[in-house]
Order: sequence, then C-alpha cells, then structure tokens
Amino acid sequence: MGRIITLLTDFGLEDGYVGSLKGIILGICPAAQIIDITHLVPPQDIRAGGFILHTVYRDFPAGAIHLAVVDPGVGTERCGLVIQTPDYFFVGPDNGLFSWVLKNEPDAEARKLENGEFWCSTVSSTFHGRDIFAPVAAHLATGVPAAALGPPRIAHIAEWSTVSRHGSTLKGEVLHVDHFGNVITNLDCKTLNNLAPTRRLVIHAAGRAIGGLCSTYGSEPPGAALAIIGSHGFLEIAVNQGNAARLLNLRAGDTVLVGVSSENSLLAPLTASPSGALPVPAVFT
Amino acid sequence: MGRIITLLTDFGLEDGYVGSLKGIILGICPAAQIIDITHLVPPQDIRAGGFILHTVYRDFPAGAIHLAVVDPGVGTERCGLVIQTPDYFFVGPDNGLFSWVLKNEPDAEARKLENGEFWCSTVSSTFHGRDIFAPVAAHLATGVPAAALGPPRIAHIAEWSTVSRHGSTLKGEVLHVDHFGNVITNLDCKTLNNLAPTRRLVIHAAGRAIGGLCSTYGSEPPGAALAIIGSHGFLEIAVNQGNAARLLNLRAGDTVLVGVSSENSLLAPLTASPSGALPVPAVFT
Amino acid sequence: MGRIITLLTDFGLEDGYVGSLKGIILGICPAAQIIDITHLVPPQDIRAGGFILHTVYRDFPAGAIHLAVVDPGVGTERCGLVIQTPDYFFVGPDNGLFSWVLKNEPDAEARKLENGEFWCSTVSSTFHGRDIFAPVAAHLATGVPAAALGPPRIAHIAEWSTVSRHGSTLKGEVLHVDHFGNVITNLDCKTLNNLAPTRRLVIHAAGRAIGGLCSTYGSEPPGAALAIIGSHGFLEIAVNQGNAARLLNLRAGDTVLVGVSSENSLLAPLTASPSGALPVPAVFT
Repeated sequence: MGRIITLLTDFGLEDGYVGSLKGIILGICPAAQIIDITHLVPPQDIRAGGFILHTVYRDFPAGAIHLAVVDPGVGTERCGLVIQTPDYFFVGPDNGLFSWVLKNEPDAEARKLENGEFWCSTVSSTFHGRDIFAPVAAHLATGVPAAALGPPRIAHIAEWSTVSRHGSTLKGEVLHVDHFGNVITNLDCKTLNNLAPTRRLVIHAAGRAIGGLCSTYGSEPPGAALAIIGSHGFLEIAVNQGNAARLLNLRAGDTVLVGVSSENSLLAPLTASPSGALPVPAVFT
Repeated sequence: MGRIITLLTDFGLEDGYVGSLKGIILGICPAAQIIDITHLVPPQDIRAGGFILHTVYRDFPAGAIHLAVVDPGVGTERCGLVIQTPDYFFVGPDNGLFSWVLKNEPDAEARKLENGEFWCSTVSSTFHGRDIFAPVAAHLATGVPAAALGPPRIAHIAEWSTVSRHGSTLKGEVLHVDHFGNVITNLDCKTLNNLAPTRRLVIHAAGRAIGGLCSTYGSEPPGAALAIIGSHGFLEIAVNQGNAARLLNLRAGDTVLVGVSSENSLLAPLTASPSGALPVPAVFT
Repeated sequence: MGRIITLLTDFGLEDGYVGSLKGIILGICPAAQIIDITHLVPPQDIRAGGFILHTVYRDFPAGAIHLAVVDPGVGTERCGLVIQTPDYFFVGPDNGLFSWVLKNEPDAEARKLENGEFWCSTVSSTFHGRDIFAPVAAHLATGVPAAALGPPRIAHIAEWSTVSRHGSTLKGEVLHVDHFGNVITNLDCKTLNNLAPTRRLVIHAAGRAIGGLCSTYGSEPPGAALAIIGSHGFLEIAVNQGNAARLLNLRAGDTVLVGVSSENSLLAPLTASPSGALPVPAVFT
C-alpha cells in the first residue's frame, strides 16, 4: 500500500481545485492513498481549519502525511512548512494552521519549504496548494526526507483561545460548531474534572444554564439542550435530535462559563433544560 | 486489490468525522478501498439513509462491506449490527437503517456487535462510528468472519411506507427528493404495471395531475412536469431541466395517488402539464 | 497502480448516484483509482462543467480517464462519446461538455459510443452515467481500446464565450464564480499582454473600475477589490479575504471590459479600489 496523504482545505467542492491537488500528487507518487478530511473549512478561517485537523490527525496510522491548505496569504511573504512528528508529516502554509498540532507534539520539527526542486516547475502566485504543497507532500510519500525540503524554522503558533479560572468558575469559549449544530467549547475533560464532579457542573451559555453533564445525546428528551463531553474530549452543548447552535444562537467565539452547583446533594443533578436559566456569575458580567 | 468498504453517514463534510472513520479503517486494514456513498443524509434521518443505501448497494461488486451510520441513539441501549448477505456485509446501528436491505435480502443473517476485541480500545458514548463500526468493518475487510463479532440477532425492520389500493387507485407517498429536485415515490414499476398500461396512468400530487409516463426527462419541454420510472424502478415526478420538488412544493411523506384515465383511447395519453389539474379521486379526500 | 478514472458530474453529493458510478467501475476494473473532481456542477449546466474540466484535466498524469456527466438530454437522441488525446481519455455525453477540451487538443479523436457489449446489460433512460459511461470508462481502464467502443464521430463543440476587441478595449465575460467568490473571466493572460502592459490595464465590471493587475490576493487590504491573473491563466476579479461575486454582484455571463489607462506614467498604476469607478467606454454602452 502506498503512503496515506490526507487533504484538509478551504477549497470547497464545486471547483477543480481539489482535483488539481490530487492530479499533481498522483503524477509524482502514483501509489499515494489520498484521503479527504474536509474541503469545507470556512474560506480563509485558519483557526477552524487548525481545530479540525487537531480533532482527526491522530486517527490515521503512523506514516500519514497531512496536507493542509487554508492560505489567505498565498503569494505573500508567509512561507511554507513541513513539520515532522514521531508519527506524521504535515505540509502547508506557516500561518498558524498547525498551532494545535505543534502544541500537541513536543517533538515536532518544522522546516521552511525552500528547495524548489520539489515544487511544480512553474509556481503561480495564487495556488501554492497545487504548485508547492501538493508536490512536496507527494515527494515525502515517495520517500524524500523532510531535511531535503528546506532548513529548520520556528513555526508560527497562534494563541486563539484560552480558558481562565476565577474562583470556582471557568471561562472558556465556543471553538467550533459542527455539522449537527453541536457547540464544541475549548473546555476539556481534565480541566472540568479538576473543578468539580461533572454532575455538579453548571454550564452557562447564551443566557441559559445547563446543569450536569449527560453521557449520551439520548439522555435528554428530543429537543432538550444538554452538555456532554464530546468525542474529542471537549465540553459540547447539544440538543438531542436538534441543532443546538441554531436553537441557542451560539457561534464560534461566544463565551461559555462553567460554575459549580451550590446544591448539597451530589445525587440530584440539576435538570438539563434550556428553559432553566440561571444567573451568570457576577464576576463575568 | 483490497476489500471495498463503502461509507454512508449523516456526518456532513465540514468536520473531521468522516476522516476519522477513514483513518481508523486504514490503521486496521491498509489495503481497504474506501468509497464514499454519501455523508449528507439529513441529520438523524434513518429513513432517508436507509433508502439511499437501498438504491446503491447492489451496484458494488460482491464482497463489498457497506458501513452505514445514521445514529441518533448513539450511546443508548440500541445495539450495533453486522449483517451478512450472499454478496455483502453491512455494519451499523440496529435502528431500522437496514430495513430496506433486510426486505430485499431473504438470506440476510444479522448479528449483534458484542465482541469488543474488534472495537477501538476506548469507546466514546457519542461516536460509535469511529469507535465501533469503523473498526468492525475494517476487521471484516481483513477477513475476520461475521460470526466472530457477536451472536445472532433479529434486526429491527421499520415499516415506513406502504402502498394501498382502493379500486383502481393506488395511494403511495414521496420517499425522497434527490439533488435535482426529482420527487421519488414508493410506487414501483411492477405495482404500476399491474394497475394499467402506463400511458393510461394519471398521477395526482400537490393538487395537480400528470397524465401518462414519459420515457426520458427530455420528452417534455423544459419547465414542464412529467412522470417517469426512475433509475431505481420507482415512479418519479420530475420537471425537465427544472426542480420538481421546488416548483410543485413536494417533500418526503407527501401523498401521491395514481389513477387510471377514463379516456377510451390508449393512443391519446393525457398531456403531462402541471397546469392540467384533475380532480383527486373522492375516495381519498 | 491501477488506471486513474476521474469523475466530474452534476449529481450532487446527497444521493447514491455517485456511489453507483463507483460501484459499477470497481465491478469491471477493481484496480481503478477513482478520483472525484467535483459533483457540484450546477444541475444541467454543461458550460460550467466544461470549464471546470478544462481547468483541471491536465493536472493528472498521462493515462488518466476523465469521466464527465452533465447530461440534461439523457435518454434522448444525443449520443455518448469517447475522446482520445495523446495523454487522456474522456467519456460522457456529446452535448458540448468537452468543447474546451476539444479546442485545447488538436489531436483529439472522438468516437460515438455504440458497442453495447461494454455497457451495463440493462440501460435505463434516465441514468446513462451508471449504465453506459461508467462501464465504458472502466473498460478503458482495463485496456479496451477506444476503437472498440464505436465509430469515429465529429463531436459537438459549443461556442459559449468570445472575446472581442474594439480599438483599445477588450470585451469579455464572466465564465465562472468559484467557491471563494472569485470572478473568473474569459480574458486570458496572452490576450491581455497583447493589449498593453498589465499595470496600465483598467478592468470595468459591475459599474466599477479596477486599475492595474495585482500579483497576489494579499496585495490589497482585506475587503478591497483587485484584478489578478488566476491559477489557470485567466483574468480574475477578487476581493482580498472577501467574496467578490457577492460584494460586486457579478455572475457568470456578465460583461467585463478591459481598457488601457490614459495616464502617461507606466510607473504609477491606478489604485485598485472598487470605489474608483471609471466611465465605461462609450463604444459598449
């Protein structure tokens, strides 16, 4: 089997751009197994692209090459990167798209793409995905070492979202709204566990409060809002068989607070109803 | 060539969920040929997913493994299934998604997924596609027999749509609206042929009547409504070079009646114009 | 590695139609490498499909088979084609979809699909993609020569768009709006270079004027309109980090004029601001 090359872009699916990447790759490495992750990153949204890459890249077997192109600065002085980690390669623009990867991977080594020998013979100023990144990924798949592609470089890491703690309240934000309308926050399982037992947590978002975490979407009746630890380990706000983002009017960047129930009984979690609005802690208002 | 694994889900194309399935599969069975059927089943719409699977699974060569995940009950007590038919395997939740397949395939044998040895080592409560169904499909592709995955089970078959006959009138319904706006009903070719010669049929839907069946979309002028037997053998209502569902305001679940023209002449089919409204037979009003 | 078969259709991604093509292909040629170009050509838009094919087919390695189906006349007397060029095969309906290809490829040889031995055993009147074109492409991939598929034929070439010159002004039109909202015109690099140095060009569209060509999208501030030679060698109107088609209200078919700045200094290109409206040359009003 050939080397896996995954593709993650904001190119959309209605033009020939994705096909061009694939054609160029197969011209250089006919045995490559090309796997689409997504091409529907919102146009130019580096942050969303970086997050989606973070949620999925570790599900691929070791050796996979992850080609990611969300590149509003194409043709300007931003440079191209190859990043090598113990298990994977990453190829794309040095604009923060690999921020999550670099935070996850302490042994990552980044290099600036400089050796034009591994690029297309003509390089446009508007489509480096086709002219630089795709051929570089394909050459990696044929066995070219990362060191041949260019010199070491300190890659750009964006600081997009932080979680802060004020007493017994955590302040985070919405990272991403998925296809189902599930609202994924930047509050991870471990941080929440450090605050209190999950059934005592109260999630405040969109002027409402949700008490306690559920273990499945089906734990609440259809149409009811609930909080859950999603498949990537982050707190999600969801609506059973409904679209939470639309129903609660939440979007990426919105603030989410997590407090601790003042109820004494650990055995009686608060009801997880979107109508059960609780006051937002004063410290954040 | 490796075993074919097809994917049919409601995961959408903008997140990393589909990529996760593929990564997990290739980690277990690097030679698998992964083929997307669709990931745009309307969220949680088991009925639509089941119908699409029905229209396409037999176009694949024998040996294909069809992985289908539309799973609103993920993490609840609904169990997972593997179904073996003479030609194919099917893997997914036991919630009715395979109803059409099971009706088509009298020799199908279903089993409950129970043997965690063939699942991911950690199973989330929100993403069994990644944690259970994908690894099971991949293990089937490597040659693991279905019997190793769990014990026999009577799979759930949903009764979504029926056709009834009242005298010389058939009552059916819209099953699906496709990408072109073609309105696909549950009235099949054979049932219609039993009623009358197709040129004498009168189709009533959306307060209009269409007389006679056409053999091609281009048989009527652009913009005109027509009835036709579609590529899967069901009666379709279409508009030449237009979107019938939008123009006629039809959607899944809407009633479609088929009567027989009272005209004596078999050689003069009624005009297939959407403006040629005929009265709906009294028995159904 | 098996032969590459690319797919370009207007089938959309929500039904089983694309899966059917793939299943049929793999049943005939299990080693085929199937690559999606796009399935989101606007329904029945032969012109858009032909343009997208033109932008991408040469990025694939020699030997690739390009299967393209945008087929409003399916089942009518329009025939099917196989086209052989020095590097590629093309399969699809003879309705103009291959017009660009045929203009690019002087050595192309077209044949009418006539030999039913290479089709599915049953041919529907509504889905020749599945029943004729996919099996023909798959048989080509297994080594069947084009000459076995049918006799030579003069393929249909549509004349969709022309560029005219009136004195020192070029009149062209919008060919395509891409996923990013970039407005791609039919004015190519060479034609523009013949008119004047690119920094003296003034592009008139949507009642506005843009002076000079940029070399990157990032050459202008975010939100500003600019003109650029895109990755396929055509003049594009774009907005840095924005959607030009939406902001300027441009769509396929709209007129685009290119004049020459009357400024004497070649060193001072006009500012590329969408607010800098210049009068449209009288000859075209």
